Amino acid sequence: MGKEIPSRSEDYSLWYNELVKKADLAEHSDVRGCMVIKPYGYSIWEKMQQALDKMFKDTGHSNAYFPLFVPKSLFEAEEKNAEGFAKECAIVTHYRLKTDPNNKGKLIVDPEARLEEELVVRPTSEAIIWNTYKKWIQSYRDLPILVNQWANVVRWEMRTRLFLRTAEFLWQEGHTAHATADDAVRETVQMLDVYADFAENFMALPVVKGRKSEGERFPGAIDTYCIEAMMQDGKALQAGTSHFLGQNFAKAFNVQFTSKEGKLEHVWGTSWGVSTRLMGALIMAHSDDDGLVLPPKLAPIHVVIVPIFKTEEEFKKITDKVTEISSALRKQGYAVKYDSRDTHKPGFKFAEWELKGVPVRLAIGPRDLENGTVEVARRDTKEKKVMKMDEINTAIPALLDDIQNNIYQKALSYRNNMTTEVNSYDEMKKLLDEKGGFISAHWDGTMETEAAIKEETKATIRCIPLDAKEEEGKCIYTGKLSKRRVLFARAY
Amino acid sequence: MGKEIPSRSEDYSLWYNELVKKADLAEHSDVRGCMVIKPYGYSIWEKMQQALDKMFKDTGHSNAYFPLFVPKSLFEAEEKNAEGFAKECAIVTHYRLKTDPNNKGKLIVDPEARLEEELVVRPTSEAIIWNTYKKWIQSYRDLPILVNQWANVVRWEMRTRLFLRTAEFLWQEGHTAHATADDAVRETVQMLDVYADFAENFMALPVVKGRKSEGERFPGAIDTYCIEAMMQDGKALQAGTSHFLGQNFAKAFNVQFTSKEGKLEHVWGTSWGVSTRLMGALIMAHSDDDGLVLPPKLAPIHVVIVPIFKTEEEFKKITDKVTEISSALRKQGYAVKYDSRDTHKPGFKFAEWELKGVPVRLAIGPRDLENGTVEVARRDTKEKKVMKMDEINTAIPALLDDIQNNIYQKALSYRNNMTTEVNSYDEMKKLLDEKGGFISAHWDGTMETEAAIKEETKATIRCIPLDAKEEEGKCIYTGKLSKRRVLFARAY
Ligand SMILES: [Zn+2]
Ligand SMILES: [Zn+2]
Repeated sequence: MGKEIPSRSEDYSLWYNELVKKADLAEHSDVRGCMVIKPYGYSIWEKMQQALDKMFKDTGHSNAYFPLFVPKSLFEAEEKNAEGFAKECAIVTHYRLKTDPNNKGKLIVDPEARLEEELVVRPTSEAIIWNTYKKWIQSYRDLPILVNQWANVVRWEMRTRLFLRTAEFLWQEGHTAHATADDAVRETVQMLDVYADFAENFMALPVVKGRKSEGERFPGAIDTYCIEAMMQDGKALQAGTSHFLGQNFAKAFNVQFTSKEGKLEHVWGTSWGVSTRLMGALIMAHSDDDGLVLPPKLAPIHVVIVPIFKTEEEFKKITDKVTEISSALRKQGYAVKYDSRDTHKPGFKFAEWELKGVPVRLAIGPRDLENGTVEVARRDTKEKKVMKMDEINTAIPALLDDIQNNIYQKALSYRNNMTTEVNSYDEMKKLLDEKGGFISAHWDGTMETEAAIKEETKATIRCIPLDAKEEEGKCIYTGKLSKRRVLFARAY
Repeated sequence: MGKEIPSRSEDYSLWYNELVKKADLAEHSDVRGCMVIKPYGYSIWEKMQQALDKMFKDTGHSNAYFPLFVPKSLFEAEEKNAEGFAKECAIVTHYRLKTDPNNKGKLIVDPEARLEEELVVRPTSEAIIWNTYKKWIQSYRDLPILVNQWANVVRWEMRTRLFLRTAEFLWQEGHTAHATADDAVRETVQMLDVYADFAENFMALPVVKGRKSEGERFPGAIDTYCIEAMMQDGKALQAGTSHFLGQNFAKAFNVQFTSKEGKLEHVWGTSWGVSTRLMGALIMAHSDDDGLVLPPKLAPIHVVIVPIFKTEEEFKKITDKVTEISSALRKQGYAVKYDSRDTHKPGFKFAEWELKGVPVRLAIGPRDLENGTVEVARRDTKEKKVMKMDEINTAIPALLDDIQNNIYQKALSYRNNMTTEVNSYDEMKKLLDEKGGFISAHWDGTMETEAAIKEETKATIRCIPLDAKEEEGKCIYTGKLSKRRVLFARAY
């Protein structure tokens, strides 16, 4: 077929890379660390965007757009944020090219077009946005500001992987401003809930909601909340973060408001984001050795129909039937693709649409026409069955719901199976090497211990789960007292 | 009110700038030449995007995403294109900042993190995309490629104006690849038609479809088609362009395919784009001295409802009625805003929603409740009338249609009135100074004449209209023979 991919057990990492390329999701570009998102991959991202955008608007947010460039003096205003991103910033220093006097047809940077102040290509937009909010906020009446931006950002990365870590990526970043700490914390948690809701109900991806340890916080945040998911190789993946910024950016950019009581106070902030990294999570969580497995709610094509025919006449009759079936399904809001190519055989087409993760495949041949039947194959379990043609219109919606649910349940049992309570450091090290997954263990709460464990095992604290129950215990590393378990894992 | 804007006759340019800012559409940022698109402005842009995106998909295109950065060596591959944009490129030269040893808390560009090859921030994406297409295209079976990208681009500009000319702007850029010149030309013209359709039916903006003269072509194109609109100050505005690229980029990037006949041939290309500049066109074409006038099809809010009350009890009764009316309208797909603020008087609210261009305003007071009536005001003509409450649900959709149509007709008669046939250069110069508008005149077809006229009058050839009739005439400047009239104008 030429489209085969290695199996997960052979080489998980290669399986992922090949799947991304062969399913036409993305590829490396000739620009270091930057990817091209191909039409099929982008159409999945668009479905994600639409669902998230609706959820943001339903919770009162509006979209806006802020500049790509951040002047260095603004970038460095919030010191911790600047420090956190300084080492991975693309910097614009000039604004003109000129013809190379020594090399006809070539261009060089014009040394006379040097910027007075260098511009940082945004790695995140807190600085530029809080510098703008300063102009928008005078009184408590101007609050809250609930704004989101869909944008590209750049973080220079030495080792990149398609979707998971790229120098340029696409994301949304919400930036909100509030009159009180309470309001800001409530917003932070609300958006975490939105992300978890999206992950579970659209991506069919179970996630743990939690807070990051101090060492893993967003630079410039008081508190970072996150959702963490488990991939099929036992590694964790951070799928979204929501930050309580306190008054850090308000103070750095001098954003104050007059309260109801007439007092001048600094504004409280949040920021929250998910990125094209979610594509990586989606692919790695559900796909198998035959290719992508897409949850129907994010599938660009819900149903593909493949005709099985020998003669032109058969083809015409099947096509008439397909037109009928697909227009009925489209009326119900499903995306249906009729693969009528005469350049490829059915077997090739089956494999191709399996690779691309289309949830349901229908095959119709001359015998089906006679019997009023159709062969229905589901991508997730690979089950096939023959159905009555006139049941299709009610059976497909139910089948798609079932697939969505089944993919989620499968990922959930896997995640549960891959979450282990551990009470000694030796046990933890053994587990990390033999099984992987989330390790629920006691930790003394210090950055030193966290760093030591990371150094020795490459596992990090993924989060302190929001639903962690109070439980007296001893830190697996130092034996010091601990009040709750945290989740460790090796991670993407 | 604090929100008043100058009149158009006083100072058209100031009127525009103030309108953009006071209607909360956009503002200047502290980044040279870059604007902030505010939530209300962005919501109009989103409506434009949705409508255009649907039209692109209906004509068979898919979205994708290509890198922000173009390595200099790729950028310079198509010489004319490179030449055309070299003077306005932002250039990334470094990938890291470090702490300034001489200035605590400040950052400097790390001289050790200099890129081996400089990166151009894309001013347009032909280079990076054709370099990618090279990998996608082997055979005629891979063609056509019909791809669009929604993205930000950067063209360094010395004099900027909100929406009309900014260093960074948002746009879409279609990039297609075809097996034959015919196919590519057909695509070029099809997308011009899509743009004209969008301008006329969504923006309510009549446009002239035409081809650019050689001197005004896109750098690297064989032929540039455009739509040209007329603003209220008699200046023209180019609202969209569609380029037939011939084989220029295919040759520069060596993109070849095997034809059905087994021959190796270069691919034919097109590119086409519209940008946030359309926001400027929309604002300038329809708005008046009281603010924005939005065509209903692009209005983020269709109907605003203002309660007129003195007592809390009156307010409650009105609110009940409003809930009823607005939910019925929302069911029909209209965006309804209930302005229930108790901090502002009705007069203030009326002025504010006029400034923001909401097409229909309803006002409801205690007397209306008694009489079962409501006051309906339309933004475009400022007409008010009292209607029966139970007619609203059928009257509003009809009224919105009427407003959409009226705005278009008004712009069309203005444009027609501002288009003048001229047969002498003196007449043209007089007209340009006294009236402006499109001047339909004969031209000898040479770049020299075009340049001379531009130098002397600041008017350029906006386009050679596609529907220009064959007509023998004499060039107004040189007296040489001409076969058709072209449109001159001063332009944005
Ligand atoms: Zn790679
Ligand atoms: Zn300005």
